[in-house]
Amino acid sequence: MHIKIFTTGGTIDKVYFDEMSAYQVGPPNISSVFEELKLAFTYTIESLMKKDSLELTDEDRITIVRAVARDASERILITHGTDTMVQTAKKLADIQGKTIVLTGALKPALFKTTDAVFNIGCAVIAVQTLPPGVYIVMNGCVFTHDQVRKNRQQGMFETLPSSETGII
Amino acid sequence: MHIKIFTTGGTIDKVYFDEMSAYQVGPPNISSVFEELKLAFTYTIESLMKKDSLELTDEDRITIVRAVARDASERILITHGTDTMVQTAKKLADIQGKTIVLTGALKPALFKTTDAVFNIGCAVIAVQTLPPGVYIVMNGCVFTHDQVRKNRQQGMFETLPSSETGII
Amino acid sequence: MHIKIFTTGGTIDKVYFDEMSAYQVGPPNISSVFEELKLAFTYTIESLMKKDSLELTDEDRITIVRAVARDASERILITHGTDTMVQTAKKLADIQGKTIVLTGALKPALFKTTDAVFNIGCAVIAVQTLPPGVYIVMNGCVFTHDQVRKNRQQGMFETLPSSETGII
Amino acid sequence: MHIKIFTTGGTIDKVYFDEMSAYQVGPPNISSVFEELKLAFTYTIESLMKKDSLELTDEDRITIVRAVARDASERILITHGTDTMVQTAKKLADIQGKTIVLTGALKPALFKTTDAVFNIGCAVIAVQTLPPGVYIVMNGCVFTHDQVRKNRQQGMFETLPSSETGII
Repeated sequence: MHIKIFTTGGTIDKVYFDEMSAYQVGPPNISSVFEELKLAFTYTIESLMKKDSLELTDEDRITIVRAVARDASERILITHGTDTMVQTAKKLADIQGKTIVLTGALKPALFKTTDAVFNIGCAVIAVQTLPPGVYIVMNGCVFTHDQVRKNRQQGMFETLPSSETGII
Repeated sequence: MHIKIFTTGGTIDKVYFDEMSAYQVGPPNISSVFEELKLAFTYTIESLMKKDSLELTDEDRITIVRAVARDASERILITHGTDTMVQTAKKLADIQGKTIVLTGALKPALFKTTDAVFNIGCAVIAVQTLPPGVYIVMNGCVFTHDQVRKNRQQGMFETLPSSETGII
Repeated sequence: MHIKIFTTGGTIDKVYFDEMSAYQVGPPNISSVFEELKLAFTYTIESLMKKDSLELTDEDRITIVRAVARDASERILITHGTDTMVQTAKKLADIQGKTIVLTGALKPALFKTTDAVFNIGCAVIAVQTLPPGVYIVMNGCVFTHDQVRKNRQQGMFETLPSSETGII
Repeated sequence: MHIKIFTTGGTIDKVYFDEMSAYQVGPPNISSVFEELKLAFTYTIESLMKKDSLELTDEDRITIVRAVARDASERILITHGTDTMVQTAKKLADIQGKTIVLTGALKPALFKTTDAVFNIGCAVIAVQTLPPGVYIVMNGCVFTHDQVRKNRQQGMFETLPSSETGII
């Protein structure tokens, strides 16, 4: 099985530059996570942008949708900032015949304790086992793109209150 | 969704005791991995034994099978040493109506670079998304229990040469 | 031997809050570094402030100087942001009869790869072995407070060009 | 200042080979610790042997003593297993005019929580600041080679009961 990975930035890729006492989006950490592992699937990684997801514009989302639609692979994994992950997921909803999984992290992958590696593991299996559709995989669960929101205070994703079917 | 986790030992749980210059199976590391995360599913963890999987006896496997069969949950995740993981998986094959996922690690979870956290992420999603059956989830892939072997030299799991259907 | 530790903030103590997509100074990380170790000296840790060192005011420095001067211990270790570490060191220069060591980090202690633990190890020995005076211990070396500067581009401390005695 | 580093093995360099379910001495970890840091001193690293210190023979100790005696540098740091570190230190006691520091770790450097990086930091400063002599630097303290023992149960080094001068 081949997985195509698009990276867009977000907390998962944040690094710290002491020279500027600043915290910025760096290169996609999913590559270094994968390099430390022996994987039985093949993959390619393409960096579309390096942005905090609050800074993603409509044009950025069009770029993402086009890249996914155009790609030959039926298994698409997108790493993305968590704040507007749901918004991007909705834009991808019209794409047919592909299993599209978005994931990210609440703590940068470069931290000693981070959810990044666990979330990437979750997303890798979700994208291989789920039927076509758009999913958010966070907090160890699969959420359908239209039944989920980020609860910022809890630092967790949750199904919409009205929904009973959002979590798979 | 509720996941029942049984731990049996294996490399994933290995610790190092300087007092004895020895390397032994310690308490289940999956608990500490989970404690560092915010998870949207519920789980219970039960330690069945703490053994290198090469030391598991027929009786140990009977203990594992009985514990899984008896448990109320339909979603069972087992952490296990990799050397005889396939052997244990085969013993579980007669259990009906449950999704049973075995995973482990090639490097102890306490190492700076380990496959443990990634593998646990993979297994957590596999056990929630797959239909009833017995699966081995390693190296970022799902293997059916009867079509897989460990390639010790490669440090990887792979489908049996005769099979084209072992990897999902 | 007893070491008194004052913490003032800086990169070493920076944490990341996803809720605000922001990076702030958190509790002193030297405590958690010490808790993971078995140490043959005794110590007490006192948090004076939690600030990026660029934000330290003259009043903050007066607070630091007074706390050090007043303290009974002759061995004082201060964790401090690197940008104005030299400035604070100069203010401490009039204190007699105490070995005062300032250290910090260029990468937060919570990162997987950080200089924090190494620097703390360096500082702990420097404060025990050096004669009274004010020192900056960074990059594996001891610098006297009046012969050192931070080279921001290199991300390193270095002796002043005019000096040949700054590094011990 | 130039530091010459000799490595001899020990827990600090232990790795885990899943292929053999075994735990062995690997390449010197001090190199990878140093590579992650920006250091203001220069150094060379020479691997003399890769052994658990319980397995060091009299001949190994002669090799170590000769290498140290013959080396041009006056600042010598030796990484060594902790169980017989004191024994090796005593053999080095006749060497004049050099500051010789032995250190090691109670947990392998490859572990998430290890004393290796801290101990290396301690040793790096000790070797630069102490007068000629043979020292053991462990648990954040400097011990003179003739007044120290390892307390295996505590997992710590301590001064001999008769001594009041062993710890500096």
